[in-house]
Amino acid sequence: METEQVDLTQFIRDIPDFPKEGILFKDITPLLAAPEAFRESIRLFAEEYHNKGIDVIISAEARGFIFGCPLAVEINAGFVPIRKPGKLPHQTRAFDYDLEYGTDTLEVHIDGITAGQNVLVIDDLLATGGTVSACCNLVEKAGANVVGCGFLVELLALDGANRIAPHDIFSLIKY
Amino acid sequence: METEQVDLTQFIRDIPDFPKEGILFKDITPLLAAPEAFRESIRLFAEEYHNKGIDVIISAEARGFIFGCPLAVEINAGFVPIRKPGKLPHQTRAFDYDLEYGTDTLEVHIDGITAGQNVLVIDDLLATGGTVSACCNLVEKAGANVVGCGFLVELLALDGANRIAPHDIFSLIKY
Repeated sequence: METEQVDLTQFIRDIPDFPKEGILFKDITPLLAAPEAFRESIRLFAEEYHNKGIDVIISAEARGFIFGCPLAVEINAGFVPIRKPGKLPHQTRAFDYDLEYGTDTLEVHIDGITAGQNVLVIDDLLATGGTVSACCNLVEKAGANVVGCGFLVELLALDGANRIAPHDIFSLIKY
Repeated sequence: METEQVDLTQFIRDIPDFPKEGILFKDITPLLAAPEAFRESIRLFAEEYHNKGIDVIISAEARGFIFGCPLAVEINAGFVPIRKPGKLPHQTRAFDYDLEYGTDTLEVHIDGITAGQNVLVIDDLLATGGTVSACCNLVEKAGANVVGCGFLVELLALDGANRIAPHDIFSLIKY
């Protein structure tokens, strides 16, 4: 348990066979619907990151926004959205990330991350780490620093932490 | 100007011809990247809504999450995501909303909104009001109350307020 006050794990719902057969999906929507749990998750992230000099939080749409945005407001950082192709209106830099089979593409505004910034990557779930690993590479290519990667839920068996190494990982709930 | 402290309008960037020719797109990403502006927008929403007994905030992915989630944390409300079809893992209710030409579909978890709840609808932008109007109908069909609809930016010429009437609207920036 990550806190003595609110046991966040009781707000995560198992959904069998989603998005496909054999996958046990961790549904975070009960946590979002419970104000005390949603607030507590942001408080725990803020406790970890508030004194790390973070300039910018980046998160991939759509579920990453759910935790990245409140945390940015809480620790007084900027927020830079990572989006699917064609969604960002200004000039973008595209980057690929690995899926279970094949790759897909995300985009960031070219003025979103600048050299020397301290950047925190936030997502709801760490599985194989494909998306977040690609985000870390993006940050480093921009000459910025990855301060860490924070997740509500980490699926330990998929070893995403190894893929994201040597970057620091902080997860509120581990399975 | 909505505040004497931070002029939010200076953080909105005009992008001509996005997503198609003839559209002047209001890009909110400079506001998100500026911690003082992002925080101020959430503070202003909270000032408006903190004492209205709001149980739940709903927002459509992905940009709605950017303001709906921090505000939920700030005013101690739950958050219920409205998503594109196939994204929500539990049982869902689908509902259509009007686009400029034709319709599209969104989904909400069937246990997301319950009868008697006070619900606030938050989005980044009010244009014609198609999405938010559909969200308001959804709330009422569930037997819940629409307390209001809040937007960072309202495009007055498109008259979305008329479409959402009689529900209350609160916008931080009007063009």
